[in-house]
Amino acid sequence: MLETFFQPKSVAVVGASANPDKLGHAVLKNAVESQYKGTLYPINPKADTILGWKAYPSVQALPEVPDLAVVVIPYPQVPAAIEDCGKKGVPSVVIISAGFREAGMEGMAREVEVIKLAKQYNIRLIGPNCLGLIDAFTPLNVTFATGTPPKGPIAFMSQSGALGTAILDWSMAGSRIGFSKFISLGNKADVSEIDLMQALVDDPDSKVILAYSEGLPNGQEFMRVAREVSRKKPIVLVKSGVTAAGSRAVSSHTGSLAGSEQAYKAAFRQAGVLRADNLEDLFDYALGFAYQPLLKGNKIAIVTNAGGPGILCTDALERAGMSLARLEPETTKKLQEFLPDAASAANPVDVLGDAMADRYRFALQHTINDPNVDGMIVIVTPQAMTEIAATAHAVGAVSKLTDKPILGCFMGEFRINEAIDILAEQYGVPNFPFPERAAKVFASMRDYRDLRDAPDAKIERFEADGSKVQSVFDKAKSEGRVTIGDAESREILSAYNMRIPQAELAATADEAVALADKIGYPVVLKIASPDILHKTDVGGVKVNLQNASEVRDAFDLIVYRAQRYVPGALIWGCLVQEMLPKGGLEILVGMNRDPQFGPLVTFGLGGIYVEALKDVTFRVAPFDRKAAMEMLGEIRAHALIDGVRGQKPYDKEAIVDTLLRISQLVTDFPNIVEMDINPLMVYEKGAVALDMRLVLSSK
Amino acid sequence: MLETFFQPKSVAVVGASANPDKLGHAVLKNAVESQYKGTLYPINPKADTILGWKAYPSVQALPEVPDLAVVVIPYPQVPAAIEDCGKKGVPSVVIISAGFREAGMEGMAREVEVIKLAKQYNIRLIGPNCLGLIDAFTPLNVTFATGTPPKGPIAFMSQSGALGTAILDWSMAGSRIGFSKFISLGNKADVSEIDLMQALVDDPDSKVILAYSEGLPNGQEFMRVAREVSRKKPIVLVKSGVTAAGSRAVSSHTGSLAGSEQAYKAAFRQAGVLRADNLEDLFDYALGFAYQPLLKGNKIAIVTNAGGPGILCTDALERAGMSLARLEPETTKKLQEFLPDAASAANPVDVLGDAMADRYRFALQHTINDPNVDGMIVIVTPQAMTEIAATAHAVGAVSKLTDKPILGCFMGEFRINEAIDILAEQYGVPNFPFPERAAKVFASMRDYRDLRDAPDAKIERFEADGSKVQSVFDKAKSEGRVTIGDAESREILSAYNMRIPQAELAATADEAVALADKIGYPVVLKIASPDILHKTDVGGVKVNLQNASEVRDAFDLIVYRAQRYVPGALIWGCLVQEMLPKGGLEILVGMNRDPQFGPLVTFGLGGIYVEALKDVTFRVAPFDRKAAMEMLGEIRAHALIDGVRGQKPYDKEAIVDTLLRISQLVTDFPNIVEMDINPLMVYEKGAVALDMRLVLSSK
Repeated sequence: MLETFFQPKSVAVVGASANPDKLGHAVLKNAVESQYKGTLYPINPKADTILGWKAYPSVQALPEVPDLAVVVIPYPQVPAAIEDCGKKGVPSVVIISAGFREAGMEGMAREVEVIKLAKQYNIRLIGPNCLGLIDAFTPLNVTFATGTPPKGPIAFMSQSGALGTAILDWSMAGSRIGFSKFISLGNKADVSEIDLMQALVDDPDSKVILAYSEGLPNGQEFMRVAREVSRKKPIVLVKSGVTAAGSRAVSSHTGSLAGSEQAYKAAFRQAGVLRADNLEDLFDYALGFAYQPLLKGNKIAIVTNAGGPGILCTDALERAGMSLARLEPETTKKLQEFLPDAASAANPVDVLGDAMADRYRFALQHTINDPNVDGMIVIVTPQAMTEIAATAHAVGAVSKLTDKPILGCFMGEFRINEAIDILAEQYGVPNFPFPERAAKVFASMRDYRDLRDAPDAKIERFEADGSKVQSVFDKAKSEGRVTIGDAESREILSAYNMRIPQAELAATADEAVALADKIGYPVVLKIASPDILHKTDVGGVKVNLQNASEVRDAFDLIVYRAQRYVPGALIWGCLVQEMLPKGGLEILVGMNRDPQFGPLVTFGLGGIYVEALKDVTFRVAPFDRKAAMEMLGEIRAHALIDGVRGQKPYDKEAIVDTLLRISQLVTDFPNIVEMDINPLMVYEKGAVALDMRLVLSSK
Repeated sequence: MLETFFQPKSVAVVGASANPDKLGHAVLKNAVESQYKGTLYPINPKADTILGWKAYPSVQALPEVPDLAVVVIPYPQVPAAIEDCGKKGVPSVVIISAGFREAGMEGMAREVEVIKLAKQYNIRLIGPNCLGLIDAFTPLNVTFATGTPPKGPIAFMSQSGALGTAILDWSMAGSRIGFSKFISLGNKADVSEIDLMQALVDDPDSKVILAYSEGLPNGQEFMRVAREVSRKKPIVLVKSGVTAAGSRAVSSHTGSLAGSEQAYKAAFRQAGVLRADNLEDLFDYALGFAYQPLLKGNKIAIVTNAGGPGILCTDALERAGMSLARLEPETTKKLQEFLPDAASAANPVDVLGDAMADRYRFALQHTINDPNVDGMIVIVTPQAMTEIAATAHAVGAVSKLTDKPILGCFMGEFRINEAIDILAEQYGVPNFPFPERAAKVFASMRDYRDLRDAPDAKIERFEADGSKVQSVFDKAKSEGRVTIGDAESREILSAYNMRIPQAELAATADEAVALADKIGYPVVLKIASPDILHKTDVGGVKVNLQNASEVRDAFDLIVYRAQRYVPGALIWGCLVQEMLPKGGLEILVGMNRDPQFGPLVTFGLGGIYVEALKDVTFRVAPFDRKAAMEMLGEIRAHALIDGVRGQKPYDKEAIVDTLLRISQLVTDFPNIVEMDINPLMVYEKGAVALDMRLVLSSK
């Protein structure tokens, strides 16, 4: 996919210029200097040759159809250039020019025009308003960035071109990180993260996919594709605009519609996307994935020549939920034999400050070969006797003999730099300046592995009477309502086979008794009248009625009172309702529709837990039983579901079932924009939905 | 204080050697190369001169008394060397040699011997088992680290010498960070963080004090001194061994007794110490404090040539609880006049990718001068037209004209490096490679300012009957008990004027009625018998007794039943107890004694909030009313105290009062090792301690 972007046989640079101050010059210059092996066609009506390549007045004037055209001309001329490319049959175009969606209404109209032309001529577009793209293996650089980054296994797509320039500048300072592809996405008028993930998944040059995104408009499709791709290689993403203030900045910047933070969190997890909290983490994680094998377990060994950093590393590993490997007695024994007495032969292995390279080499070799060790962090502080370069070679040599990941933590810069270069260039061992960062990289490997190995969601389908729900919604629509009444809620819940308190209308005392007999005692009686809203205020509710005689008395009393307190009220009779047992746990199950990812289902404990503690968790629907069960464990108060203070556990399966039925309901009916069941009363056995609120789309 | 360590007139190096492989050589060489202006005395019985300085066989043989002796000889000879120094009258000694407390029982004995000798001769000691010390302004370097770091305003004391070597190596790679003093603390046999804080507080060369600590044995004294020092300059500290695994590593490493994480958190906050989570933060924060003025408010402006990093910065500021400055209309107007149309003249100010240095300069100048702006982050990505060096000069020039802090975020390395050097060397503007790190630095400035400006704790003294408590404890001790009984708890709570349910023993029904009349109805009656533990099981409790007749009936019934169900039981009568109203909130107030900081008082909501949610907060006692009130706001469920779902707020003052009385009690009686009131029932008005558990020291 998208091969004509990355391995074009020939490239036209529309707007190529001989003037070094022009971006069109920089792009062509980068293409030339990247040692591109195909043909370059500068398109410039006023030039004969530019940078040694023959120029042409238009794309249509070219002697062949180029695979790729890069457009870097003032925005008013861009539509004509696209048409020029289209008529020639160019399959792929990168529009570097700005002045589109990001520039207000007029620019938006221009972008729509460009998209229309591209569709008409079957052109795939990258941009507009971008930096261009680089394929380090083709090789081809058609950006206006300064210079070309080192070649390596990292593919990076960025919605911010400037961020790209910074990262490329960073990479060019050493050979410590290398890129396979860099793609500046710009306004994503056509090609988006989704297309690129599909293109990169089978790219043998890319071991890890990095992304900087400000918004993911086609959220459900993004999730579907990311879930497939992340089974094969890690996708690490920084999403900006996660806070309220950040989102405002995003809107003014690229016009992306930012989804709620909670929706992103749920969606990334479900899609197997590893989220980096910040840019430093993004590239730290990338180094781990790109240059070291994936961590198979979570037990880490530390080898260090200094106690303090070893403790900091231990702290950081534990904070990140990793565990310190417990070395086999045999390993410890071997280490003890060779290491000085004062050394620590347990993990963290402390080879002491006077350790030379040979002592490191011995300790590293035996530690990494311990069957309890899944990965290793090597801490080296530059002490008086430390053989810095030789120790780097020792680390590298050991890394070549193992299939377990090893991360360097050579601390310092002045004397240490040499070692970092040796590690990166000769052995592909990434180095992190502080032990805490190495620990986080191992945690990211565990997180990716867990995401990768999570089974595909197995969506269950419950039997449900969709047509009944549809008719409720149709009725509401015909009446111009977007909200749903009490009785309608009961119908919907019943149609999806969720348990609701049994209740039926009795017009007479005899009917009430018959209904109570059917429902089973005790029951509750409530006045049924469209004119009486506050039932309790008029004495219109009697609870805990134990037998026929109490029901009969209650019916007569309630109706008498209602007539007396609200003269002229229309009285239908009484609702006879099942009396729910005490001791249930209040649960909230809700949904709101996220503009990017769709139905976002909420779970939490009801009452104060939701209102005061905001202790809730989310999933994008539809999700499966495993995900629903995980939700129960994700709230802080999860222990309450298991029962505290000697209480028996509540019925988890009943909660999970409700979550899944709601997942199905909101997936079946995309016109539900918001709903919640609050509370769902859960008991030792079973759960009952007491109240539901539901809002339909007004469209 | 400690002047003879930092500005000695002459220095003896005990163990100085001509052999470059020896640490004693490295130390003398560093002293020579640091351009120390005083006299150096190599102490070595086998040499005439070393590195150009005349050697002596012993300290006693010196022609004068040196201010400082640095001991770097094998551990068996160290005690004799200390005696040698002592006899000469040397006031201060740094012991670099290892082989002491960190090396097991034998080493511990050796350390004790050295401490004894030092006391005997009035010697102050740094070390043993350390790297040495550096004063960059004297100048003097008596470490065995390689090279001397650049001079600057940062004092750094480290319990890990190796960490020092790493940091010094890092600092030597550029002139981006400079140190005033570096002190390797080693085993802290004598001089500790406490002495050094006292020495550094008035040191004009040190603007900020950094520390790496593995444990703070003299916690209360540390807190007292840190609280004074942090009023004058920031103390930023990384404490390692915070997790369970990390603590085990600490114990095996230096034998420090690690306090609980919660105790450190509370103590640092109360002492005004700024905690850094990791080494990267430690030095990032140091750069901010050392080179920029302190942030006066929390409103930050961002000026950037790229949208993406601007959004990331906005996110990071908001996450850190900072706010984005809202520019004055006048500022926005000025910016709009000068900036291109597509630029953003609101915060974040986006000067666009083609901004040259002059556009930056204009935007920076007007933005920093806006009265709503307290500090500014300048983001520069190296785009095609970016004038990197000139932009650095623009930032620097603006920083010279303002007293507000400015942080650089020039992103990249290859082309960017030059700018970072210009900023640091010529203008003292620190640069951070990612916007998130700059945002955290501003947050650290806010945190320090808040710590610095927190008023001194005003410890209240409540009237209390200490002798009554003492007699309860004496009785327990005489009986060999460490726990306190029900009635004793009531006595203690009463002695400190905490409200407990009124209750008195009635031997007869008449007495019961008289007591109930006094207490006020309704009351509770409980069987009083040392032989009946489970009162409810024998029908020994009657609640909600409304009048004299009910009390009389209940008394007779309870006693009758007790006699019948537990034949032969000794029956004292009935306890007549105040019936507490419903609707109270359960609170937990507890204390355990931290080995390093002393009495650590816990506050939380009772029941599931403590048991299942672990929603608690801590302070080291004694603390004041302000701190107690803050505790109420720190738990996640704090909204419950204010009343949710239409409830009226509970009596916060009553909770605060209880916290303060407990703070006083546990301060007054250091033999209380553990206690809790659980629950304290709090009402709209007042609070009642229902149950207390208290454990005394067995010593």
